Amino acid sequence: MQMAPVRRLAVIGLGLIGGSLARALRQAQVVERCIGFDADAGQRQAALALGVVDEVASGAAAAVTEADVVVLAVPVLESGTVAAALRPALMQTAVLTDVGSTKRSVLAALRPALGTALRRFVPAHPVAGTEKSGVGAAHADLFRGHRVVLTPTEETDADAVDRVRRLWQAVGAQVETMSPEHHDQVFAATSHLPHVLAYALVDLLGRLQTHQELFRFAAGGFRDFTRVVSSSPKMWHDIVRANRDALLPVVDQYVEALQQLRGAIDRDDAARIFEIFSRARNVREHYLRSTSAGAQP
Amino acid sequence: MQMAPVRRLAVIGLGLIGGSLARALRQAQVVERCIGFDADAGQRQAALALGVVDEVASGAAAAVTEADVVVLAVPVLESGTVAAALRPALMQTAVLTDVGSTKRSVLAALRPALGTALRRFVPAHPVAGTEKSGVGAAHADLFRGHRVVLTPTEETDADAVDRVRRLWQAVGAQVETMSPEHHDQVFAATSHLPHVLAYALVDLLGRLQTHQELFRFAAGGFRDFTRVVSSSPKMWHDIVRANRDALLPVVDQYVEALQQLRGAIDRDDAARIFEIFSRARNVREHYLRSTSAGAQP
Repeated sequence: MQMAPVRRLAVIGLGLIGGSLARALRQAQVVERCIGFDADAGQRQAALALGVVDEVASGAAAAVTEADVVVLAVPVLESGTVAAALRPALMQTAVLTDVGSTKRSVLAALRPALGTALRRFVPAHPVAGTEKSGVGAAHADLFRGHRVVLTPTEETDADAVDRVRRLWQAVGAQVETMSPEHHDQVFAATSHLPHVLAYALVDLLGRLQTHQELFRFAAGGFRDFTRVVSSSPKMWHDIVRANRDALLPVVDQYVEALQQLRGAIDRDDAARIFEIFSRARNVREHYLRSTSAGAQP
Repeated sequence: MQMAPVRRLAVIGLGLIGGSLARALRQAQVVERCIGFDADAGQRQAALALGVVDEVASGAAAAVTEADVVVLAVPVLESGTVAAALRPALMQTAVLTDVGSTKRSVLAALRPALGTALRRFVPAHPVAGTEKSGVGAAHADLFRGHRVVLTPTEETDADAVDRVRRLWQAVGAQVETMSPEHHDQVFAATSHLPHVLAYALVDLLGRLQTHQELFRFAAGGFRDFTRVVSSSPKMWHDIVRANRDALLPVVDQYVEALQQLRGAIDRDDAARIFEIFSRARNVREHYLRSTSAGAQP
């Protein structure tokens, strides 16, 4: 049997994504041994009890000692602190990667934290997840058929990029590459903005006097629309702060689009309302047909 | 065997809701014979071919002749025209009901169309549906475990209300009653507003130069958030126009809430962002626990 391409994998942050990646890589038999660490003792114990990792370490530095691949799977604003803590224990040949939903901020935080080791850091963003969080929700198939975006820079080692690409391919993901700047623009529009819109809606309805009754009569559409609100508030708080400069302009564009639609409703402009609704439906149907990701529509 | 409580049911409008109600009532064996009509010949043929109805009529008036219960399942802005067309053929004892998502507008449109027959009209809104439309998507279990809101007025016959209530109960729905005014307020916030927000988002992204790429990288959260956009544009165009005066104030409240969140992100007010996100998550989780409707979260 061929030797597993990763002798010792360290996963720092045993949440939904870190836990799922550990499960998936072990199931794909590309990892000999998997060591995990999470700042939350409960998550560490659960990861061990659920067989997500082979062992848990007492700290980030202890986890990465002798690891040839290290995955940072922590909320994006913690990346710098965690990287600084594990830096002294990193093998010189170790490849680092992450799973954060923003990429410029992680690179900026890791630059001072990692120093020369930054060139072996491969920024990665698996475009997968559920509204559930925690290691208990982790499963090996989370990434199958989903895209993973790598955002290496000019400094990034080509060998490190190749290694990370092969790991994601081993768990069934479709790997794509773009610049960190472009990544942050794309996901501000398609992911961070919808989250912000849904959080604002649920918070508004929750503050209304009548909210108990409102939610009693909320239907499936409302549940779908607000599912993202059940995601980890800490994780999303980090994301919107980290990607603020890309996010704010699309929030402003959105408010303008909403005000245009509001204006059409206000003046009872039937043709315009129908045009906007039909165009949106066509865009979504076209997108559903063109997307190849295995997830349900 | 007991005689079915409805000898002859007429369903005007053979879309998702009308078709599903016909299927459900026939499966519950509370209807002896079901006659359908739809302005679209294709939907009529499909309804017959799929066994959704026993027969189709050549017009709304022909369909309701000798019917003891008539269901209007047309887009809300068409209710008045359809009611006026079938009025001359209505039996004096016939009970009318509808399935519209707005209630004041339907009552206002039916008042001149029905005249004295208005007292046998029971306004109803089944809080169920999917983003699919058309009779092909109709199924008998659509209403099981879902709420149906009846909004009778002081003029409405108590016997008619009882009859409609029992029909909905026969297909597994939980029937509740409220005033038309209150209904329109509640659904402006929990249903019409989320639809408007999602339409505005997808339309905005579809108009951006980069939209092809944006949608390639959209994840499950985006699909969930925008599912409602795949609903019938005609139906939703009618709803927002019909409920304009209740909808516009909540759109404005929403824009204000969104601007507050935007402001917190802009000034990097970490505590405030986290507070809004956490509160919204708690509200949604609380609502999911308290809701008894059988649908998935």
